[in-house]
Amino acid sequence: MSPQHTPTGGTVGEVGEFGLIRAVTEGRAQPPTTLLGPGDDAAVVAAADGRIVASTDVLVQGVHFRLDWSTPDLVGRKAVAVNLADIAAMGATPTAVLVGLACPGDTGADVIKELTDGMWAEASRAGAGVVGGDVVRADQLVVSVTALGELGGRPPVTRSGARPGDIVAVNGRLGWAAAGLAVLGRGFRSPVSVVKAQRAPEPEYAAGPAAAKAGATAMIDVSDGLLADLGHIAESSEVGIDVRTERIEVHQRLVEVGKALGADPMAWVLTGGEDHALAATFPSFADLPDGWARIGSVTMPDSGVTVDGTAYEGGTGWQHWR
Amino acid sequence: MSPQHTPTGGTVGEVGEFGLIRAVTEGRAQPPTTLLGPGDDAAVVAAADGRIVASTDVLVQGVHFRLDWSTPDLVGRKAVAVNLADIAAMGATPTAVLVGLACPGDTGADVIKELTDGMWAEASRAGAGVVGGDVVRADQLVVSVTALGELGGRPPVTRSGARPGDIVAVNGRLGWAAAGLAVLGRGFRSPVSVVKAQRAPEPEYAAGPAAAKAGATAMIDVSDGLLADLGHIAESSEVGIDVRTERIEVHQRLVEVGKALGADPMAWVLTGGEDHALAATFPSFADLPDGWARIGSVTMPDSGVTVDGTAYEGGTGWQHWR
Repeated sequence: MSPQHTPTGGTVGEVGEFGLIRAVTEGRAQPPTTLLGPGDDAAVVAAADGRIVASTDVLVQGVHFRLDWSTPDLVGRKAVAVNLADIAAMGATPTAVLVGLACPGDTGADVIKELTDGMWAEASRAGAGVVGGDVVRADQLVVSVTALGELGGRPPVTRSGARPGDIVAVNGRLGWAAAGLAVLGRGFRSPVSVVKAQRAPEPEYAAGPAAAKAGATAMIDVSDGLLADLGHIAESSEVGIDVRTERIEVHQRLVEVGKALGADPMAWVLTGGEDHALAATFPSFADLPDGWARIGSVTMPDSGVTVDGTAYEGGTGWQHWR
Repeated sequence: MSPQHTPTGGTVGEVGEFGLIRAVTEGRAQPPTTLLGPGDDAAVVAAADGRIVASTDVLVQGVHFRLDWSTPDLVGRKAVAVNLADIAAMGATPTAVLVGLACPGDTGADVIKELTDGMWAEASRAGAGVVGGDVVRADQLVVSVTALGELGGRPPVTRSGARPGDIVAVNGRLGWAAAGLAVLGRGFRSPVSVVKAQRAPEPEYAAGPAAAKAGATAMIDVSDGLLADLGHIAESSEVGIDVRTERIEVHQRLVEVGKALGADPMAWVLTGGEDHALAATFPSFADLPDGWARIGSVTMPDSGVTVDGTAYEGGTGWQHWR
């Protein structure tokens, strides 16, 4: 998992801030967009077309992840993935991430090393660099990531451009993280594929810019659940959206897990969060890029988000703080 | 303090994430560099010369601030100020901040509103916008801020460009925050001027780009203490630095507080952190910009950081985690 992993030893309190920063930044390769990497007051990142796309997400131990359900490496990957998915959802290409880490002084320095190894791995997968950060003391492990990206001269794809008649399409897996959460919640550790999906989503970042080039009118990353996030597009664009379940192929693995747990896999697909697939709307005449599948249509304003033409019975996704 | 403050009522748990985000973003004016503000997956910020300067800092309740020693408004100002000072220290002009907030669900929504009011106020003072963020649940209040800035076509001023013979100069107050901390630590609330300096530094952001234009060879913001931070320049630039105390005017207010507490005000000036003044080196022939005062010289490598030609007796600044 972490070829660069060198034993650090001791706690972060013993190693100290500067030692820790050295341990997690030393010997890392930066992409060409990193004009000045970690080690100074601030980093400098290329923004070739004169604009930068930026997003911040915070993950908290016990709320967004559990180290007994995951590993520091996978938590690091996830923290970066959820942010870079937001960049891709604007139609932008990820360039850099900055990391704010708060943790108890008795946290093993190895844990932080592994966490940041995961961050570098996921950032590298997206072509981005980890360009800066801060490590401080706190009672609880909190990981804050800011992601940056470039638009390549294109306008950003916001949530507000969908028009009645547009196609609704998705890229990436849906329901897998929810199935993984259900499995973990019952005390199981397998099937590994769904558990891994919950621990660390693997968004296909290039699908965002590809959708933008294909003329996507609105886009969002599916973090709260498909219906909830399509609801954000519907609200911002002042349109309705209808999802057709016959268009959605529920993967055999989800069907099996659903059967084993007595759960409806379609509910995971429609309402499960944390997969960080991309959902977008396209003009009806658009050629969908590779990996994008049509799942519905944009309808008239005030019809809301419907499934097969009717209101969906049941919750629509993750409720923050509720 | 907060003219836009509207009563929010209830706890953040009751108001919910979306209600809270609405309450803290509604009706805010953005600067021209904010091309797309809060409300989508990511923000878009101008980076006119094709580069962006970026820095992240994390502040934790009970570690970096105490709400019984300060107010949410001043904590918000400080969280943004410490970050924007890093941007200025690269010679860049602040353009935007992104905010990651973690707090217990029973935190008053008013507290978060006031905190973000402070953030907007300090960002506005710097000409920057609050362009995005995330609010999540945690056991402890953690504020993570990422600041962005523009270089205006200039190279960044790093820590590594100082050369023997250069002038060492500072802009802004030194020792005030340390004096404030000493006052608060004794249970006093006054003098207000030093207490306020501890609660919320007020860096002169324009001094950073001004120093860059005047040819600054190295620059840093004084967060750990003057000698400690000059030590970072000395190490990165592989030079020595000598500070002359006869060049440093200790403000009468610090002298008075020192006398009252039986403390040496010069120690606060030399080793007190959190003032977020700027320290820089300039070629010996440079005209120092307004507000910059010469306090020493860059000396030969391996002589380290000295005060009046000799090693400083006593600690040199804030030790993280120690």
